[in-house]
Amino acid sequence: MDSTAPLAYAQAHQDDFVHELETLLRIPSVSTDPDHADDVQAAADWLAEHFRALGVADVEVLPTDGHPVVYAAHHPHDDAPTVLVYGHYDVQPPDPLDEWDHPPFEPTRVNGDLVARGACDDKGQMLMHVKALEAYLKSDTTPPVNLTFLIEGEEEVGSQHLSEVLDTYADRLDADLVLVSDTSMLAEGQPTVVYGLRGLAYVELTMQGPNRDLHSGLYGGAVENPINALSQLLADLHDENHHVTIPGFYDDVRPLTDEERAAIADLPFDEAHWLDEIGLDTARTENGYSILEAISVRPTLDVNGIWGGYTGEGAKTVLPAAAHAKVSMRLVPDQEPEAIYDALEEALQSRVPDTMTLTVERLHGGQPVLVEPDQPIMQAAAAALNATFDREPVFVRHGGSIPIIAEFQQRLGLDSVLMGFGLESDAIHSPNEKFGLDRYAKGIETIIHYYPELAKRLA
Amino acid sequence: MDSTAPLAYAQAHQDDFVHELETLLRIPSVSTDPDHADDVQAAADWLAEHFRALGVADVEVLPTDGHPVVYAAHHPHDDAPTVLVYGHYDVQPPDPLDEWDHPPFEPTRVNGDLVARGACDDKGQMLMHVKALEAYLKSDTTPPVNLTFLIEGEEEVGSQHLSEVLDTYADRLDADLVLVSDTSMLAEGQPTVVYGLRGLAYVELTMQGPNRDLHSGLYGGAVENPINALSQLLADLHDENHHVTIPGFYDDVRPLTDEERAAIADLPFDEAHWLDEIGLDTARTENGYSILEAISVRPTLDVNGIWGGYTGEGAKTVLPAAAHAKVSMRLVPDQEPEAIYDALEEALQSRVPDTMTLTVERLHGGQPVLVEPDQPIMQAAAAALNATFDREPVFVRHGGSIPIIAEFQQRLGLDSVLMGFGLESDAIHSPNEKFGLDRYAKGIETIIHYYPELAKRLA
Repeated sequence: MDSTAPLAYAQAHQDDFVHELETLLRIPSVSTDPDHADDVQAAADWLAEHFRALGVADVEVLPTDGHPVVYAAHHPHDDAPTVLVYGHYDVQPPDPLDEWDHPPFEPTRVNGDLVARGACDDKGQMLMHVKALEAYLKSDTTPPVNLTFLIEGEEEVGSQHLSEVLDTYADRLDADLVLVSDTSMLAEGQPTVVYGLRGLAYVELTMQGPNRDLHSGLYGGAVENPINALSQLLADLHDENHHVTIPGFYDDVRPLTDEERAAIADLPFDEAHWLDEIGLDTARTENGYSILEAISVRPTLDVNGIWGGYTGEGAKTVLPAAAHAKVSMRLVPDQEPEAIYDALEEALQSRVPDTMTLTVERLHGGQPVLVEPDQPIMQAAAAALNATFDREPVFVRHGGSIPIIAEFQQRLGLDSVLMGFGLESDAIHSPNEKFGLDRYAKGIETIIHYYPELAKRLA
Repeated sequence: MDSTAPLAYAQAHQDDFVHELETLLRIPSVSTDPDHADDVQAAADWLAEHFRALGVADVEVLPTDGHPVVYAAHHPHDDAPTVLVYGHYDVQPPDPLDEWDHPPFEPTRVNGDLVARGACDDKGQMLMHVKALEAYLKSDTTPPVNLTFLIEGEEEVGSQHLSEVLDTYADRLDADLVLVSDTSMLAEGQPTVVYGLRGLAYVELTMQGPNRDLHSGLYGGAVENPINALSQLLADLHDENHHVTIPGFYDDVRPLTDEERAAIADLPFDEAHWLDEIGLDTARTENGYSILEAISVRPTLDVNGIWGGYTGEGAKTVLPAAAHAKVSMRLVPDQEPEAIYDALEEALQSRVPDTMTLTVERLHGGQPVLVEPDQPIMQAAAAALNATFDREPVFVRHGGSIPIIAEFQQRLGLDSVLMGFGLESDAIHSPNEKFGLDRYAKGIETIIHYYPELAKRLA
């Protein structure tokens, strides 16, 4: 179980690894936008071809009713542990485009970072796993574990069809764990294993008033305005203590133990730096919770988008027929998305003025996740990270959502090891998303270490 | 002062009059949109050429720092009253485009109506005045009054440069009154003179939070959301009785007398029909006021547009850096726009959360107007309307705003006669704007009657 040769190969080929990532980043595989469907397919095909070029024999682009899933398996052993590597090749939309310093799909190297949509989330982090396998194969070293890759194209739109794939191909997906790099480190140089994720419930609201746009001079004063009404509805979703006011919203939230709160307080998290980096003087959390608690272990509600009426240049005195918003809630154990959807819908509908109708469309959701940190698959991650960074990793719960991680638990009975190399300053989902090339290299190194650390512990 | 010949000419040439209106409606003179600047100029040039073709000698397209003003004068008398005809050749933007049954700039005749952007507001109503003059000139009848036309191209963006024109060309604008057709009739077949208009104060708000769009999973819970905060700000602008909560907002509102309220209650206004026509079961007025009061003599606040975050297809989990809204207030005597702007700004800024900055841009405003209904210039209008419609006109205060009417009072000392032929169902500022061809004809007839009625009273 010697990883010297793969590590040397990775070090020698780092430039090639970056070039290949740049090639993948040039494909604008925006999964939410129907205009980019061909690009999403192209990214899947590129990845499958890349596996084949490494000599992986069992490679398939699995079709779904949405975007395809790339499957690749390299199983050199009959009785070794099997790692199911999960990642995604789709990306968020790049807008607002005019806030990018460089075109989002023309990767640009800036001060040791690679700037592009998807650089961190998740093309860069996903490709590290492919490159780690390459380092074994091309250095003529048999990886000490079996590897199955499942790389999807719908993570950014709620992994709508991956659950079907898990069911349909369950016999090919037998494994000991899921290994994922799609999360962040707590700070630069601080290796981090994520053992919890927030869930998600995402809706689109349409508030409909009169049957057409009206002149605000002729009708204003006697016709309730859908934007005013929607604003009221959204405002009422929080109280003055920044608690969510949906009845029952917190009922199933598992209380934090004193030990958990103490562990969170002990984490090396610099509140001032965190605020400074996003241009704020002050955080706004639920009363009684720290920033780190609020962004990781507490549920939230945010308006992600709003639109209605005249939004062009200048002034138009319209009293609009309708107003729209996108609203999402981050959920924590043991909140259930379906129950939360129902509670939100009931709360909203009970507050709709009688001159309006409200439509609530459920866009996508996912359950929160907790993984027991003391088990061997997690301790192998800690050892691999320590070997690379020469620093003890921390175990944290993360505020983001990867809905499919709960599905792996439910459908395949597999826990996930969330070993990510992002930083919050990587600006994922924002303009000027980036990924540090040093972290790309260290991620590959860590994964090369992980295989023998896992094999040793599961022997 | 016989108007038999002009009336006969107008009747005989009604088809031509409609064709000419259609030609003007094909020019997309959207004043708020810089992309349409050439079209706005083209509409001005078309109108000037049209005056010249009628034989009006003194015609000029007056340049301004914005869109030009068309000036035309026909003064056959040394000592007759002079009518200053005001109108506008610019139009509102046509969006939302997909709600039009026919293209907005391809006028279409539907059941006796002409459907097009500007058909009623104000190209159709403005052109009636040109056609009335034509009816005199082409029937070899000297109009019994002097006529000066001032037709601007910035009414829909607040008449920003017309005040300068009033000052610069004051010596050419000497007159006894301003005559305007840019308002509505209270109901089909009910001739109406408007003796009051609401003023306007229109702002654009930008609520700025963090320095960039953030991932709602990584930051949600500890960063105040600009859309949530703007929603709260907008919601707080009304209380549960639908009063505007800006301190001092109502201070200068002239109280309604019992006589005024009784006169409004006596007007032939069908609340059920009014509601039905816009698809509502219930109005929402300030507590204690009727629909007609609320839309004409009470001040209001409406959000005209709102936008922020992700507004495209599907789901994007963004916590946006900023949110925006357009907000306008309709003002009544004796509210002053500048004082109201200040009060709004103070109210908003005092409620901005400390993690946000709010920018308030004043887009355009105008003062409310009241004209004494018993004076000869108004009674001449009543007589002309009665002659055409065979029905006694009503005098009403109107909820819309024509900011320049207050300027005519202040800068030229002139009262305005607001004799309009629109209907609320004409959907001005909305998709499928229209104007009834019968009303176009009756408007021209009324104006032909107005000249001798005025000359008689001011003799």
